[in-house]
Amino acid sequence: MSLAAPEVTIVEVAPRDGFQVVKPFIPTVQKLAIIEALANCGFTRMEIGAFVAPKAIPQMADIGDILKAAKLPASMRVQALVPNRRGLDAALAAGVRDIGWVISVSESHNQNNVRRSVDESFRDLEAAWRELKPDVFLRFNLATSFDCPFEGRTPEAKVLDGIERVLGFVEATEIAICDTTGRAAPDHVGALFETAVKRYANDKITFAFHGHDTYNLGVANAIAAYQAGVRVMDGAAAGLGGCPFAPGASGNTASEDLVFAFEHMGIKTGIDMDRLLAAADLAQAVAPEQAAGRIRTVPRKRVLAGFGAQTKGIAA
Amino acid sequence: MSLAAPEVTIVEVAPRDGFQVVKPFIPTVQKLAIIEALANCGFTRMEIGAFVAPKAIPQMADIGDILKAAKLPASMRVQALVPNRRGLDAALAAGVRDIGWVISVSESHNQNNVRRSVDESFRDLEAAWRELKPDVFLRFNLATSFDCPFEGRTPEAKVLDGIERVLGFVEATEIAICDTTGRAAPDHVGALFETAVKRYANDKITFAFHGHDTYNLGVANAIAAYQAGVRVMDGAAAGLGGCPFAPGASGNTASEDLVFAFEHMGIKTGIDMDRLLAAADLAQAVAPEQAAGRIRTVPRKRVLAGFGAQTKGIAA
Repeated sequence: MSLAAPEVTIVEVAPRDGFQVVKPFIPTVQKLAIIEALANCGFTRMEIGAFVAPKAIPQMADIGDILKAAKLPASMRVQALVPNRRGLDAALAAGVRDIGWVISVSESHNQNNVRRSVDESFRDLEAAWRELKPDVFLRFNLATSFDCPFEGRTPEAKVLDGIERVLGFVEATEIAICDTTGRAAPDHVGALFETAVKRYANDKITFAFHGHDTYNLGVANAIAAYQAGVRVMDGAAAGLGGCPFAPGASGNTASEDLVFAFEHMGIKTGIDMDRLLAAADLAQAVAPEQAAGRIRTVPRKRVLAGFGAQTKGIAA
Repeated sequence: MSLAAPEVTIVEVAPRDGFQVVKPFIPTVQKLAIIEALANCGFTRMEIGAFVAPKAIPQMADIGDILKAAKLPASMRVQALVPNRRGLDAALAAGVRDIGWVISVSESHNQNNVRRSVDESFRDLEAAWRELKPDVFLRFNLATSFDCPFEGRTPEAKVLDGIERVLGFVEATEIAICDTTGRAAPDHVGALFETAVKRYANDKITFAFHGHDTYNLGVANAIAAYQAGVRVMDGAAAGLGGCPFAPGASGNTASEDLVFAFEHMGIKTGIDMDRLLAAADLAQAVAPEQAAGRIRTVPRKRVLAGFGAQTKGIAA
């Protein structure tokens, strides 16, 4: 593992986006074991869970216990997703400093996901954020930015409107443009990020890409985002994930597949692949039938032989 | 299915590259059913098998029967792979006009694959080709052009040498630069094709990309090839495939995943996705444990809803 700053940062989201779609409750000790194994791979950021109504997503009910018990490197940034003011207050009370707030670009998905209109969601966020101290950081997730399961392809103008709206009351933020359903194509991802990065990115406003590999476009989409200047990508170990309120949304792009892709192009991620593969094995065990990603299916010694530099043959 | 010329041509290779790595003999009638189902999807080209020693690859022993019995559209170009003069003669005698000849860039893979040196392979091809009538077309496959299972990363200069060598005695050909192991990364694919296309492509010399999805880079690599000007891509229904003499080579990039990726970016393939998914189901049945590809795992109505134009929601 290199001590140099990674050239692309993978935010590990399996503990939130991955676990939340698993129906049977994953025992807290099992969650902790996976989270700690992932933390040990070199990830500098992790979305560890969500502060949501346990009735809506029972899987996230133990987020408080997890935050208390998980043993994580002091340098790791821990992020929690919140859908509203109530979740935000709970997250802050639990000591979370990186807040993921999610609003969908499309009206129908926002209604399904957080049971309010897009406008209400923005007004909630604005009201909440104006009161906060500057030591809380907003990771703003703009869901269904490419495609909505109910409305189809998302018009670029609506995404840019969403960005402008949040920038109207937030000075510093990371905006994750999210392919919630996995139906974005690389040309779409590249074009949208090129516009957004050129128009809005600066010292305080940065962009991230959150993608799914449902249609085998996850890696190509992440590369397109990278080429457009994005340096933060969400991934989930073992390709777990989805959205409980987005029909057809499955598997986040597997972190290990993203790490392989970037490292293989000489772009450093700071992640130890050997450890990540072991952690991904732990993660897939919570829902093997929902797990995905290709790299896990390749014999380990072939993944690791000449990994990155690729100077040796895999059969050597 | 559009009558317009496709903007990218997918060459369906499951009947050769896919079937050849399946150990139990696939009954000829089952092969025929799959081949005819694939032919019915709109593919304009298919690699239907190989003329190789049955001792080396028993699965290809019925190629003669298949060529006689398969009912294919008159417009379909039927290609067969040959490793040497003996195979070439047999293919021509069986009426094949599109000849796939394979030579590896790396010495050790060529020895494993066709049991002779790279130089011998080129001399064989040159001697054979000088005698042929101009109604036979050469699809020249340059294997291990990015990575060799024994030697590691392939130097670009060696690939260009291989191209120059074949162009020394062939006037018109399609040169497939092959990622035999699936370990190519998109930057590598893009850079190599940009050089090759700029330097050698003209009316009579064109390029194709043959890729594998072993490391979840198959789609991204095909897109990189496309961006560098390549308009012909090999794919295998259900992601079957590999190379019996290349350790670690698995799954050709699934044709249905390639079709989805290109059509979703508005690049026409001429393939009927609905029929292709049905044909891919037939193909995967020959070796379900070796089958891959993501699109087959998505509920059909979601793949087809707003496919390409993507104007409707998938849950609508």
